[in-house]
Amino acid sequence: MAVYTEVSDEDLGNFVASYDIGDVLSFKGIAEGVENSNYLLRTTQNSFILTLYEKRVDEQDLPFFLGLMEFLSGEGIPCPLPVSDREGNRLRTLAGRPAALITFLDGMWVRRPRNEHCAELGAGLAGMHLASTRFSMERQNALLMTAWREILGNCTGKLDRFENGLQTELEADLEQIASAWPTNLPRGVIHADLFPDNVFFLGGRLSGFIDFYFACTDFFAYDIAICLNAWCFETDGSFNITKAKALLRGYQSARSLSADEIAALPTLARGASMRFLVTRLFDWINTPEGAFVRPKNPVEYIKKLRFHRQIESASEYGLEQIS
Amino acid sequence: MAVYTEVSDEDLGNFVASYDIGDVLSFKGIAEGVENSNYLLRTTQNSFILTLYEKRVDEQDLPFFLGLMEFLSGEGIPCPLPVSDREGNRLRTLAGRPAALITFLDGMWVRRPRNEHCAELGAGLAGMHLASTRFSMERQNALLMTAWREILGNCTGKLDRFENGLQTELEADLEQIASAWPTNLPRGVIHADLFPDNVFFLGGRLSGFIDFYFACTDFFAYDIAICLNAWCFETDGSFNITKAKALLRGYQSARSLSADEIAALPTLARGASMRFLVTRLFDWINTPEGAFVRPKNPVEYIKKLRFHRQIESASEYGLEQIS
Repeated sequence: MAVYTEVSDEDLGNFVASYDIGDVLSFKGIAEGVENSNYLLRTTQNSFILTLYEKRVDEQDLPFFLGLMEFLSGEGIPCPLPVSDREGNRLRTLAGRPAALITFLDGMWVRRPRNEHCAELGAGLAGMHLASTRFSMERQNALLMTAWREILGNCTGKLDRFENGLQTELEADLEQIASAWPTNLPRGVIHADLFPDNVFFLGGRLSGFIDFYFACTDFFAYDIAICLNAWCFETDGSFNITKAKALLRGYQSARSLSADEIAALPTLARGASMRFLVTRLFDWINTPEGAFVRPKNPVEYIKKLRFHRQIESASEYGLEQIS
Repeated sequence: MAVYTEVSDEDLGNFVASYDIGDVLSFKGIAEGVENSNYLLRTTQNSFILTLYEKRVDEQDLPFFLGLMEFLSGEGIPCPLPVSDREGNRLRTLAGRPAALITFLDGMWVRRPRNEHCAELGAGLAGMHLASTRFSMERQNALLMTAWREILGNCTGKLDRFENGLQTELEADLEQIASAWPTNLPRGVIHADLFPDNVFFLGGRLSGFIDFYFACTDFFAYDIAICLNAWCFETDGSFNITKAKALLRGYQSARSLSADEIAALPTLARGASMRFLVTRLFDWINTPEGAFVRPKNPVEYIKKLRFHRQIESASEYGLEQIS
């Protein structure tokens, strides 16, 4: 929910004039996305999203993100296509920020995903993974064990407000996850932030993936683990195995999981909980009460972490062996 | 900058199905407007703004606001047209809030208005005033002297953070404004909140007025006074008489001001400063630091009030006598 950077009339005019996209009809800030400023730009030719990258995005990563979207679009994976200016640049500067123009995707994110959405998501995710193996750029996952440890360290002494002993509990978890973490699984580009608000649907069918600004090169199964957390728990904290089954079956309809991936899934899911838990804890602690952007409540992910801790086999997620 | 109320998939589906507007293609929260939640809704037929009215809007006033937009649209004044559902209702309930669907207006608001925008504004405002005399509904201005006095009273003891003696100064101003306030000037519907973000332009021409949720029946010249404050001061606080001249000339190109209106203009401008000053002071005092919606800084309007206090005649605003 955010527009952090205002764009002046002159700056917008000059920016748009650098592209072959027609004349501006409308320009409105969008109340979605917490990392960057997003505007909906309508011109006489088309609709676009104009993104101004704020401080949390490393400018050096932008060619990877934009290149990935362009590559996936070309592979038929529905996602925004970066638009180049008249000189062929996908990345420009606007209002002092790196800025890119991408095509507007029809569709809506689902506030309460149902089984059929999870099935569509699984199949779409597998398709994206398969396509990504032909993408040549790489980006290291910046949010793994080392980062979790550092972020958790920065929370020291401030977690009592959530629960006594939480810090010790999470530190122990972190070491267990680290020692069980797989070293060699099928890998490629993962989205790494595939929450419901980053997946669009139209008439019940998946119509697009957006917001690739955490994408990186990592284990495919870790992306699945992130989705299990983000799509298959109910608001009361309970795990919905029917949704997980739909997601995993959808995934395997396009790409079968290996025995190693299946064995690693509980550890990956525990790690995926830890990843979002530590960043949410950090944001919660470091955001003044009633702040401009409301941070997400970390408690949800404490529960998810504890749930995965007691999982012994991926079959408890509803995973069916594909013969 | 706001979306206060989330709309569930089911609620949106049911809502849209009540209208003859095609199928939903996209639904995005807009980061504009501080009073209500606004969504941009695109369907297979058209684009719309879906507004959910939050607590600051009195539900009883909504028929007036929606009726006014419908009336003005019919008179050729560019503004959003409320869309009726299949049963003829312009006002429905969505996510527990009163909600209305209005047509999407092309155009952008101007971040830094120039002379030519002020001229367009003046002419457009006069056109709206003239048309409004044929509108049959009435709504009292809820933000006049009595309300200012009450709001200022609620700030007692809390204005020292801005300036010592501010409360006393404003109370004296308020009484002077009240005693000089005109009793009989040409009246009709005024917009009463015509800041630059409520006026759209396209290719340098005024393309629409939006956000009629302060509109009421009052002196036309008071609307002009609000615009002088909102459009004709520079960011350094200086009054730009060239812009004011353009605005007033534009206005009088469509509707001549009477001698009484001209004589009252300095008092009305002083009152218009007081009106926005007291609400901004109140919001500033009552919003926690770093809050979700950043209140507008009141200091700008303290300066405007002091400027108008020393004005003796409307000619100091650049008003030219129309012979």
